[in-house]
Amino acid sequence: MKIYLAGPDVFLPDALLIGRRKAELCADHGFTGLFPLDNAVALAAHDASLQIFRGNEAMMNDADAIIANLTPFRGPSADAGTVYELGYMAGRGKLVLGYSNDPANYVARVKQFETVESRNGLLIGADGLAVEDFGLADNLMLIHCLDLHGAPLVTPRRRPADLWHDLDSFTACLQIAAERLRPQQAR
Amino acid sequence: MKIYLAGPDVFLPDALLIGRRKAELCADHGFTGLFPLDNAVALAAHDASLQIFRGNEAMMNDADAIIANLTPFRGPSADAGTVYELGYMAGRGKLVLGYSNDPANYVARVKQFETVESRNGLLIGADGLAVEDFGLADNLMLIHCLDLHGAPLVTPRRRPADLWHDLDSFTACLQIAAERLRPQQAR
Repeated sequence: MKIYLAGPDVFLPDALLIGRRKAELCADHGFTGLFPLDNAVALAAHDASLQIFRGNEAMMNDADAIIANLTPFRGPSADAGTVYELGYMAGRGKLVLGYSNDPANYVARVKQFETVESRNGLLIGADGLAVEDFGLADNLMLIHCLDLHGAPLVTPRRRPADLWHDLDSFTACLQIAAERLRPQQAR
Repeated sequence: MKIYLAGPDVFLPDALLIGRRKAELCADHGFTGLFPLDNAVALAAHDASLQIFRGNEAMMNDADAIIANLTPFRGPSADAGTVYELGYMAGRGKLVLGYSNDPANYVARVKQFETVESRNGLLIGADGLAVEDFGLADNLMLIHCLDLHGAPLVTPRRRPADLWHDLDSFTACLQIAAERLRPQQAR
């Protein structure tokens, strides 16, 4: 069984290293980890971004599940590319699992970036648009996708010292994947 | 034919009004517009967010296409919920169309929020993570999803005065949908 390893990890200076570490952890649980191709394509090629897209899509089509790193990235929500991939895999009926290394909820995170006011029972951001206030970690579509098509978002009790390299919650997702996918293999 | 109308429009103070306006424009082009349920559910209900998720997913399953408002929202990228829905619809093989009312590219937008440095031929953000530098409007997964499973992202030449209410680029998406979907109807 193959698991697509989505996340902004591809943007880390040591992306290849963390990709390899995640793949090793997959192997420990009996899975093949597929790490996005962002770092395996010659970035100078005129169609580099298209090559990456096609490669990542082919890997997603080939995978049985996704484990998405939904740790907030450049704003209060998860990385857009990772969220796209979560949706794509849910649309294809694959097992969707995700984790965030930031245990704060969405409202608390928006407040880190802008002033949030309470008006007529709604929370309103600096842009004048409402702030979703369901006590969830991110936009409800992401969170309930996990609830209904996989397992609830995995988060640590406390924010780890190294937000981008701590793999405890990733490993917890692998354990869930092992429970969900391996009985099917044995049938 | 039905089109799912994704976007952070649901968070606007006049969300119901803009939803109605978009649905009218859909009708003008021979389509039924399906607007997300975020504003049609009693927010005080204990399972309000789950009701919204289930309702939105059912509408997406029922729709033939999506038009996603990918105008940047609370950061340099599009709204996470909208991006999730774009991915979901692509995964289900539906026609995916999208627009952004901000014509700036991703690198320029990241620079509005943080300092970006050039290191060893890569752009690095304040968080130490690389900034995608393909001259695209957002993360490559979103942009090439549109290119390969729909039509290129529609953007205005200039940022409109009212970023959240200007519907010119939305209307351009409807025209593309009419070209792509209505010939099939006639077959």
